[in-house]
Amino acid sequence: MVLMPDGFAIWECIKEYFDRRIKAIGHKNAYFPLLIPERLLKKEAEHFAGFTPDVYWVTHTGDNELGERLAVRPTSETIIYESYSKWVKSWRDLPLLINVWNSVVRAEITGTRPFLRTSEFLWQEGHTVHGTEKEAESEVMTILKIYKELVETQLAIPVLAGRKTEREKFKGAVYTMTLESIMPDGRAIQMGTSHHLGQKFSKPFEIKYLGTDEREHFAWTTSWGISWRLIGALILAHGDDKGLILPPRIAPTQVVLIPIFYKAADGETILKETRELARELDEVGVRVYVDDRTQYTPGWKYNEWEMKGVPIRVEMGPRDIQHKQVTVVRRDSGKKEAIGREIAVNTIAKTLDDIQSDLYEKAEKATVELTSDAGDMKSFRQILQDKGGFIKAFLSSDECEEAIQKETGATVRLIAQEDSEQGRCVYCKAEGSKLVYFARSY
Amino acid sequence: MVLMPDGFAIWECIKEYFDRRIKAIGHKNAYFPLLIPERLLKKEAEHFAGFTPDVYWVTHTGDNELGERLAVRPTSETIIYESYSKWVKSWRDLPLLINVWNSVVRAEITGTRPFLRTSEFLWQEGHTVHGTEKEAESEVMTILKIYKELVETQLAIPVLAGRKTEREKFKGAVYTMTLESIMPDGRAIQMGTSHHLGQKFSKPFEIKYLGTDEREHFAWTTSWGISWRLIGALILAHGDDKGLILPPRIAPTQVVLIPIFYKAADGETILKETRELARELDEVGVRVYVDDRTQYTPGWKYNEWEMKGVPIRVEMGPRDIQHKQVTVVRRDSGKKEAIGREIAVNTIAKTLDDIQSDLYEKAEKATVELTSDAGDMKSFRQILQDKGGFIKAFLSSDECEEAIQKETGATVRLIAQEDSEQGRCVYCKAEGSKLVYFARSY
Repeated sequence: MVLMPDGFAIWECIKEYFDRRIKAIGHKNAYFPLLIPERLLKKEAEHFAGFTPDVYWVTHTGDNELGERLAVRPTSETIIYESYSKWVKSWRDLPLLINVWNSVVRAEITGTRPFLRTSEFLWQEGHTVHGTEKEAESEVMTILKIYKELVETQLAIPVLAGRKTEREKFKGAVYTMTLESIMPDGRAIQMGTSHHLGQKFSKPFEIKYLGTDEREHFAWTTSWGISWRLIGALILAHGDDKGLILPPRIAPTQVVLIPIFYKAADGETILKETRELARELDEVGVRVYVDDRTQYTPGWKYNEWEMKGVPIRVEMGPRDIQHKQVTVVRRDSGKKEAIGREIAVNTIAKTLDDIQSDLYEKAEKATVELTSDAGDMKSFRQILQDKGGFIKAFLSSDECEEAIQKETGATVRLIAQEDSEQGRCVYCKAEGSKLVYFARSY
Repeated sequence: MVLMPDGFAIWECIKEYFDRRIKAIGHKNAYFPLLIPERLLKKEAEHFAGFTPDVYWVTHTGDNELGERLAVRPTSETIIYESYSKWVKSWRDLPLLINVWNSVVRAEITGTRPFLRTSEFLWQEGHTVHGTEKEAESEVMTILKIYKELVETQLAIPVLAGRKTEREKFKGAVYTMTLESIMPDGRAIQMGTSHHLGQKFSKPFEIKYLGTDEREHFAWTTSWGISWRLIGALILAHGDDKGLILPPRIAPTQVVLIPIFYKAADGETILKETRELARELDEVGVRVYVDDRTQYTPGWKYNEWEMKGVPIRVEMGPRDIQHKQVTVVRRDSGKKEAIGREIAVNTIAKTLDDIQSDLYEKAEKATVELTSDAGDMKSFRQILQDKGGFIKAFLSSDECEEAIQKETGATVRLIAQEDSEQGRCVYCKAEGSKLVYFARSY
């Protein structure tokens, strides 16, 4: 899959936000090799078993067969921990808080979908080392919180946070915390995951440190990631039949200004006025683009920018100039309004905020409507058939989880955080079962 | 090779500068696949022949053999042009100005060196499409100029710009423009290249557009790249026996502040004063770090920051506080000076500028000293043996170029821009030969 410039610009906005947030609390970026020797990938058995069916293997360089196969990284735990075992010596070296922006590949032969399921995808992978289990677990939650804020405040998509079941967790983790959102079509998307790896990797990779007690201890590690799936979620959650609708905070271009003139005589004034408004908007931090291309008609431009999801379009034609006004069109509602030129900058900035919160509210309402309770399998199936979405139900065991997945295609997206709540298993009716969220997912 | 956080932060500074420069003139970032089907790589014969001995080939996913081998990208011309042939339809789509930040791999089995020669390296690759040859050639030079400004004004390393010989050009280019710098040990480093690809790729990949003349034309393309070699050059050009010396403009941390106290009673005031100075420096745009770690002694910290090349160290101890002064130590000269607290911010900012220009001047002086003329092979060999560096000489042909390389290990780094100058070939004595720069290179 190719990520074209407009899509990549969205990824840059996501990156910029998250990068700033994690750097502010001491994380640093680094880079680790793409090709991982097989012997490293094998060191943690469960991890290897989980990933190996999907690994792309390099076997030759030029015409020469390699002595050892190299995996094109499916995830970097193993190659990174090989380094960490050399870097971590003392409690003084901890915590080690490193993040990587790269791409990974995993063979996805069937059912590929742009952004959601592709063999290669862009992501970030964080890999941290801590002196105590408590600190590692706290890191897992700190990152989950930043992910949640990214998704909710920037992407305007509500998310549920919770723990994955054993069946659904990352292969090699003690446990996985996840963020899940429901799309308008009733399917769930996993928006990000944060894994507590305990000492499951630090032991085979010998990541040890000398404590203040002068004794050697195995360290505790975490890993966490978000990928360009977030762009897929953004398209699904907010888009309509005309194309994308981008929430202003994550939109590379927030306002497009389109000068409209049919007589060359009008052109100069209108262009000048348009550029002046763009300058004023830029000054207050609004990301603007003046579409002054002469090879396209205004109508063609409207369609293009609507498809690309730019939150606000400002039209400036002869009538607008004459009446000292500008015409502001919201991408989300299609609402078109003439606004006095002297209040244009403030009104546009305010409208961007309104669009951001309106999109979130709309998505939240949809999520509520797409969240149901099921007490038995009959209603479970009925809900899936009628509208899908999240189905809250009690679950007793791995066996029931597997049976439900086989029969309905729905998987446990997460264990509810209100997990003190207990009830009868939706499948086997056992008492004392945990509350979980099921859904069919992308 | 692993790029650790401090190294990666230098790469981020390089990236930030170049990214901003090219975006300002209309380039956009995008992302293209890592794995390139063999049939695409084969489309341009000279290109394929040049790269194939070094290609890492993926032959399997999991246990399944692939129907077609996939190359782990050695460079992306072929996979990108496959897309461009679909994107470019009309003159309205041109110019297409796209850049990618990624990594590439090329089998380097022997003679690997950190940053300079590694199988995988981080780089950017720009790929542009134009309607006319003139525009493509202008793009080649525009980028070369930005590279030159990056290297000279940010990295403080003087560079020569010129054309590569046929023998040394990029495999598949019409011609390659290069930037070359000489390191203190007398070896040259290629700092960046910008290739005019003419229609050599647009023809096999069928990148065609409908012109304003309503006729179909093959487009003209360019590609250009800089890599993390620049970090290697930075280390070689400015470093000393204590470690790195980073030019302030490219230093992730420009000033490190070290509070010094031996009695806890002093600690609070000194820490407060140190943080206040850091805040004031940050306010005027200086990148600062307060090293308030208690597990290390001041002496240990001095060594660490000297090794990492931070341009200025500010020490703040009880005596400094008492005398309303700070102690400023320059990494490049080792010069230590007490400065009145009230002029500290301005003096430090000014000193950063001084370090930047002093480093450039020093490197320029070294380059002049390491540039010689050779009229015959005897003096050519003598210069190589004595000091290396650039050797300016006249060259008649590919055959002489090859013979000189075989006999001396020196290659033509570039054809002098003052290429109207002609003389007798240093090797075969033929008249009317072109002026070129030879050097042994990394």
